[in-house]
Amino acid sequence: MNTFTLNRLIPFAVLALAAIVAMFIPSLPNFSDTSKYNGADIAWVAVGASLVFLMTPGLSFFYGGMVNRKNVISTMIKSFVATGIISLLWVVVGFGLSFGPSIGGFIGNPSSHFFFKDVNSPAPWSLAPTIPLLLFALFQMKFAIITPALVVGAVAERIRFTSYLVFIVLFGLLIYAPIAHWTWHPDGLLFKMGVLDFAGGTVVHISAGCAALAGAIVLKKRKSKEVQPANIPYVVLGTGLLWFGWFGFNAGSALGANDLAVSAFATTNTASAVAGLSWMLFDYARGKKPTVLGFCIGAVVGLVAITPAAGYVAIPQSAFIGFIAAIISNVAVYWKEKSGIDDTLDVFPCHGLGGMVGMVLTGVFATKNVNPAGGIGLWYGESALFISQLKGLAIVVAYSFTVSLVIFKVLDLLNPIRVSQKEEERGLDETQHGEKYVQGTLLVDHNGSLLEKDPVEPLAI
Amino acid sequence: MNTFTLNRLIPFAVLALAAIVAMFIPSLPNFSDTSKYNGADIAWVAVGASLVFLMTPGLSFFYGGMVNRKNVISTMIKSFVATGIISLLWVVVGFGLSFGPSIGGFIGNPSSHFFFKDVNSPAPWSLAPTIPLLLFALFQMKFAIITPALVVGAVAERIRFTSYLVFIVLFGLLIYAPIAHWTWHPDGLLFKMGVLDFAGGTVVHISAGCAALAGAIVLKKRKSKEVQPANIPYVVLGTGLLWFGWFGFNAGSALGANDLAVSAFATTNTASAVAGLSWMLFDYARGKKPTVLGFCIGAVVGLVAITPAAGYVAIPQSAFIGFIAAIISNVAVYWKEKSGIDDTLDVFPCHGLGGMVGMVLTGVFATKNVNPAGGIGLWYGESALFISQLKGLAIVVAYSFTVSLVIFKVLDLLNPIRVSQKEEERGLDETQHGEKYVQGTLLVDHNGSLLEKDPVEPLAI
Amino acid sequence: MNTFTLNRLIPFAVLALAAIVAMFIPSLPNFSDTSKYNGADIAWVAVGASLVFLMTPGLSFFYGGMVNRKNVISTMIKSFVATGIISLLWVVVGFGLSFGPSIGGFIGNPSSHFFFKDVNSPAPWSLAPTIPLLLFALFQMKFAIITPALVVGAVAERIRFTSYLVFIVLFGLLIYAPIAHWTWHPDGLLFKMGVLDFAGGTVVHISAGCAALAGAIVLKKRKSKEVQPANIPYVVLGTGLLWFGWFGFNAGSALGANDLAVSAFATTNTASAVAGLSWMLFDYARGKKPTVLGFCIGAVVGLVAITPAAGYVAIPQSAFIGFIAAIISNVAVYWKEKSGIDDTLDVFPCHGLGGMVGMVLTGVFATKNVNPAGGIGLWYGESALFISQLKGLAIVVAYSFTVSLVIFKVLDLLNPIRVSQKEEERGLDETQHGEKYVQGTLLVDHNGSLLEKDPVEPLAI
Repeated sequence: MNTFTLNRLIPFAVLALAAIVAMFIPSLPNFSDTSKYNGADIAWVAVGASLVFLMTPGLSFFYGGMVNRKNVISTMIKSFVATGIISLLWVVVGFGLSFGPSIGGFIGNPSSHFFFKDVNSPAPWSLAPTIPLLLFALFQMKFAIITPALVVGAVAERIRFTSYLVFIVLFGLLIYAPIAHWTWHPDGLLFKMGVLDFAGGTVVHISAGCAALAGAIVLKKRKSKEVQPANIPYVVLGTGLLWFGWFGFNAGSALGANDLAVSAFATTNTASAVAGLSWMLFDYARGKKPTVLGFCIGAVVGLVAITPAAGYVAIPQSAFIGFIAAIISNVAVYWKEKSGIDDTLDVFPCHGLGGMVGMVLTGVFATKNVNPAGGIGLWYGESALFISQLKGLAIVVAYSFTVSLVIFKVLDLLNPIRVSQKEEERGLDETQHGEKYVQGTLLVDHNGSLLEKDPVEPLAI
Repeated sequence: MNTFTLNRLIPFAVLALAAIVAMFIPSLPNFSDTSKYNGADIAWVAVGASLVFLMTPGLSFFYGGMVNRKNVISTMIKSFVATGIISLLWVVVGFGLSFGPSIGGFIGNPSSHFFFKDVNSPAPWSLAPTIPLLLFALFQMKFAIITPALVVGAVAERIRFTSYLVFIVLFGLLIYAPIAHWTWHPDGLLFKMGVLDFAGGTVVHISAGCAALAGAIVLKKRKSKEVQPANIPYVVLGTGLLWFGWFGFNAGSALGANDLAVSAFATTNTASAVAGLSWMLFDYARGKKPTVLGFCIGAVVGLVAITPAAGYVAIPQSAFIGFIAAIISNVAVYWKEKSGIDDTLDVFPCHGLGGMVGMVLTGVFATKNVNPAGGIGLWYGESALFISQLKGLAIVVAYSFTVSLVIFKVLDLLNPIRVSQKEEERGLDETQHGEKYVQGTLLVDHNGSLLEKDPVEPLAI
Repeated sequence: MNTFTLNRLIPFAVLALAAIVAMFIPSLPNFSDTSKYNGADIAWVAVGASLVFLMTPGLSFFYGGMVNRKNVISTMIKSFVATGIISLLWVVVGFGLSFGPSIGGFIGNPSSHFFFKDVNSPAPWSLAPTIPLLLFALFQMKFAIITPALVVGAVAERIRFTSYLVFIVLFGLLIYAPIAHWTWHPDGLLFKMGVLDFAGGTVVHISAGCAALAGAIVLKKRKSKEVQPANIPYVVLGTGLLWFGWFGFNAGSALGANDLAVSAFATTNTASAVAGLSWMLFDYARGKKPTVLGFCIGAVVGLVAITPAAGYVAIPQSAFIGFIAAIISNVAVYWKEKSGIDDTLDVFPCHGLGGMVGMVLTGVFATKNVNPAGGIGLWYGESALFISQLKGLAIVVAYSFTVSLVIFKVLDLLNPIRVSQKEEERGLDETQHGEKYVQGTLLVDHNGSLLEKDPVEPLAI
């Protein structure tokens, strides 16, 4: 283990190469014509980028608190490390692939923004005319980070760390970048079809949810599906940080400090509030106890479902969206538990289905009263948007699921992506990282005998 | 337990009804004349609303870390669930009751902003002329959320969860909305009396502190008042998030990105810093150890006390306010421990008294040098404001305490609001929610014998 | 212990005196000519001040999670209490010393802004012409807070709490204020030498890192250097909050919502991402496991190193800075473990060296393409800036280390700053604060026998 091996050198060598290449890239003038920029919009979108960044550590806690205590930090780091990997990937080619000049509506030109080149010169098109393109690129980076981080919940407790690292690089290149391009680039295929996705129903949640399903299928069931949440306060913290950060996600997606941002803030909060209550009270109505986890998971499902709709629907309808999304995901989780697929933390029923419900209901409840640049939904008598939403949804589901399945399968053939049975039993914290989530606690067997003693320094009592 | 019963269906049915009604509410044009809006003010108040949101999960940790380990998450969720319940209530009628056209100075017209109707058209009066009324409504919503969440600290470790849920609905309608209307609506009774409350001394802290006292009285003492804080790092985290969020609370209450916001930021930080030190060093001077809890609680008391004064007093006087508030609350906590009232986490001495000290000292130290729209305090030679503050304080104390007492008593008559003695002994986490705050820890009796063994999956060592 | 003693009264008496003096300080008009202020810049810098505030509780978790479980909260409070002490010190004289009219380039006039006097009148010079001077003072206050809080990591697990409190007061007065003045005041010695330090490479990180080294030397080695991190999720949380807050630290240091802020945001995120990966993959390449701690520590080192450079270098070069800083600190930690100096949590190798690497590489990669007010680095063919950076670095290293050493030595002579051996064995949580970080856990010896039983209330099973 403690010897240099070529295999172990490769990831570091790639990184070192990137850093050294970077050193030689000329620095371009950073300041283009600033007269068209609006300071308030810059302030708000920079806050938004910061808030969306915080969602990823928030997600680490949301997931880390729900797994078994021997897998807490191995779950956390899988989400959190996306801040490192995707940030770099996005700077190098991700932004170009997603938002560079379109190659036939399929993908952006990766060389267009190599190492964030030309993010300060005026863009040939403009999604965000009042802020520097660089700020738009940074805001979008945070979305690209959290998307693969969402997949972690499905593959937790059994995927090898290095396989996961390779997966998120490939996910970023082959799944996230194209879907972001299709949906949000003015020349993108779905954009031109009229698909509306305000802040990432397809791009973020459906793509992650379907990749999660593929991952769970390839990885197969855990040896023991019995999970006792390691630490519920972590889930509360994660939910709080996610909800807080989601104001940046959705209201920030207005890309300015304006009325639309305020409207998206309101629909986001309303859907989340109603969904949290719905999940908890639906459980209660069915004779279960109203749980802390239920409120937290429900609130996150509401946030997911409102994401594509946030800037297109009115506030009362956002309450309905939160309600219906929570019920659908709640029932789906119940069904999933009976299925053979082991999606550890219900990423598909929560993010995948939640995103789908949101996309469909955007097609139902969108109104130009809220956003003149949006569309008109089925509820208000028009069907074109609704049909576009269904088509867009189907395309993204099929693409994300299929490509993810291929990536996971190929990775698994090259080198099994699942840890050994023995490692799974001992937990990934110890076997993948050599670390323990908390010091000084004990593990006992069912008779109360100590199974493992933490080598805590004895106290001189 | 696992059967449908009518009782258990009611809360879900009410929620479902609200969601379905919402679906039918017409979406109104979202964009009124935007020419009068100021983007920077929108950005700052939207940040403020986000920050104040984060205070509620922060409070969950502040309280959750201080209770016994068997009541951690039942305490956390009681604060956190207010984000769900009050958000919805506020959208439906709360904002109208608080800030709709005044009915005789007592209450707003609840139908005026039913489901946030007409929050984009110009208001007949304007508290916040440079931002959309919807943003003002969202900012105020976060205050309405945290207020009942504050009460949790007094009733923790023994109130039934569903009783608590009903309580906060009634508190929101019967206590928060009227007091907010009296104090902050230009036609409100206290507003017209000249009472100054910058960010919620009466509306938030006195109202919550007095409700807390009423709750503690009705619930009676816990079986065992012995509390060992379950997790002090949670209290540190909670304090950090509260202090951070309080910049949104107080500086955000300037409702714009302006000099007054900056001044409120400065007084807020100064009072909090001095109060944290005062509490800790006062303990130290009296022969106690300087505790982590002492610094944290003191800092929060400082934040409470400066709240009504933040935009009216100068920076040096804010240091004095923090100092004196901390000493008064510290001594009051000491006295309270000798009384028969079991206010679990000292909500009344900290929030109730802290708010009162702040209201009185606003009447002492307010100066038009800081805020030309404010008043002149006793210290600067005028008594009118001081007398108004005392009157306002007395009215809010009497109203909040009395109505809370009635609510708690009536709820208790309908269905005992306190859990059974056996449930209290086992802890509310398990008996109310069927959850455990952390997995894999042990409980031992005083001889070190294991009392409860977590069914942790045995390791294959 | 429970008796009044003069010694114990002194700190409280000093605080009380300050509060009472404050009451008598006249409140000055708060509003100067506001026509020159820019609302967006106010909003962004106020957000920045809030974010930088949050870094200090974040640091509490970053450090608190890494120490032994018997020293968790004593470590946390030492960082967190700086919010109290330095806030007050800064209001009273710190800001004047740092940014008041210069006395020969060495120090500001302490009476110039006594109790934040004259922070609203136009300053004789202007670092931040578009925001109130008071906001600049508040933003800078948060930097002054976190700097001594960084030192905690080196002296953790053995310094007496009250000695530490005295140390940070002296550090603030004798080290932080002068260095801030030299570097950032337009008449400061280093500023005039052309030293560039965008957001605190010398002022914050080198000064703290060298003080940490001095502290570790004076305190000598802990009895047992064996540390098992008490709680790794705390480290993840701390890292997340630090990274989040650092957007305020670095992008906020542009002092406006403008292109430069956006550029600093991008370099900050890039350096941190690359550094986190570098540390983890460098470990992996050397045959170690890729650890959660490694990614977190690496990310923080990247943030440290980019701090002085953030607004002067281009994005590609920031990736290189993050890479090289992580490798240097990683290797230095390895060497340090072999040395006789017991810098508990590697403050010198991470913050001290990280800051030095950042200062030097600012001299290498700075370009006027990014910041016309900046300089031109060695890489682009000029040597003047590079030489200035080296000189500035040497001066700050020498000054901070020497003065810190003297302070620690003198304090130690007056009253030993290290706890007794018995107290160290029992842990500082209990012996300094009488508190326990978490309730209901057990300590066992190496045979699994219970050493300490938490007096948890027995459950009625």
